[in-house]
Amino acid sequence: MDHSKIQHHYSHQYNAELEQIRTSVLTMGGLVEQQLEFALNALNSGESEQGEEVVSNDYQVNAFDVDIDERCTQIIARRQPTASDLRLVLTVIKTTADLERIGDEAKRVAKMAVRLASADHSRSLFLQIEHLGSLVRAMLHDALDAFARMDVDAAVEVVVQDQRIDREYENIMRNCITYMMEDPRSIPLVLDIIWSARALERTGDRCCNICEYVIYFVKGKDVRHTSLEQIEKEIEG
Amino acid sequence: MDHSKIQHHYSHQYNAELEQIRTSVLTMGGLVEQQLEFALNALNSGESEQGEEVVSNDYQVNAFDVDIDERCTQIIARRQPTASDLRLVLTVIKTTADLERIGDEAKRVAKMAVRLASADHSRSLFLQIEHLGSLVRAMLHDALDAFARMDVDAAVEVVVQDQRIDREYENIMRNCITYMMEDPRSIPLVLDIIWSARALERTGDRCCNICEYVIYFVKGKDVRHTSLEQIEKEIEG
Repeated sequence: MDHSKIQHHYSHQYNAELEQIRTSVLTMGGLVEQQLEFALNALNSGESEQGEEVVSNDYQVNAFDVDIDERCTQIIARRQPTASDLRLVLTVIKTTADLERIGDEAKRVAKMAVRLASADHSRSLFLQIEHLGSLVRAMLHDALDAFARMDVDAAVEVVVQDQRIDREYENIMRNCITYMMEDPRSIPLVLDIIWSARALERTGDRCCNICEYVIYFVKGKDVRHTSLEQIEKEIEG
Repeated sequence: MDHSKIQHHYSHQYNAELEQIRTSVLTMGGLVEQQLEFALNALNSGESEQGEEVVSNDYQVNAFDVDIDERCTQIIARRQPTASDLRLVLTVIKTTADLERIGDEAKRVAKMAVRLASADHSRSLFLQIEHLGSLVRAMLHDALDAFARMDVDAAVEVVVQDQRIDREYENIMRNCITYMMEDPRSIPLVLDIIWSARALERTGDRCCNICEYVIYFVKGKDVRHTSLEQIEKEIEG
């Protein structure tokens, strides 16, 4: 991270507290990345153990969410941060909320993987979702990297990636519909694949949210609900 | 609202600012309620105008989100709130984020309504979703009411209601699957109904979130990621 962006304080303790919440977000991010990886492994391999592990480890993600939120509240109450320190704390609160929800999406994918593991099915639809999964995993990694370095350009790159995720998702949806129409007995199974694809698409959206918070922290501008073009314009401006 | 819950300040201006953000959340809540109502009307009546209106009015919901968030940040920076004032500001920030996402769900339902309006379809599946819609609308109204009065018991009631929403949603899913298997040509249309049901179910979850923030404000306890039993225990404790 570019430390010039973080104000330096006479209080070493205060500095340490700000650094700790930032580090905790990255630790939580690492856990959420692992949850997503295991969920996708379970989906792709058809082995349910890793899927079950994701479901049983979700409480750890939630615990991070509650703990980081609590520490942020204490920093606001005791340290009365302003300017970029306050933006950092608010960025951490919001990023944590999105990471927690990415954890929920990973849990959804994991549950589908457990259900699908025992089903008899064609592998063709899975190849597509494997591809979408690897795109979304890369996106989450890049979003966390943008957060770690508070890098605005990297953040914009992630928002650009999301367009590809959306196209891939639409492709999967079309193929799933065709598949179901040709073989109506496959409907319950294909619906599980659709839910997994949807969870991955939503994960992409949440990665974009995290990147918007990074832009807010660095530039002091709220770019939520604006187009990619507007975001790029704000950053240049 | 029970004003004993809000600390009184020597600064009238500060008091006014806290009251204003609370009022803005309720105004935003009223707009989101209307968006959901219009989206459901469009879905149930098969007339697309109201659906199109919801889509084009979503920017207003987003504008509230950005504006309230900005004002909360300014209050934290300038007024350095602590204790219940700080909890109020944080509760407002989080409630606004969930209201904005309920607005997104209403937009999703509205888009489906516009698509479904031109489709030839049986009304039977719509009756069920009409019922789910009216349950979710009541739930949103009750969640906003719990927020307006900062009423913990009313908040718990909403969390209890969500179980009924989940059951209703599962019923719709089962019926949709049966319908698609019996008439595979209906698949694209029924999928739109499934997406609408899903959006309504998610809206119920977000109403629960709002109620958890109300409990956090009043009791100072973070009850997210806990069961209904634990929430009830915390409140009694």
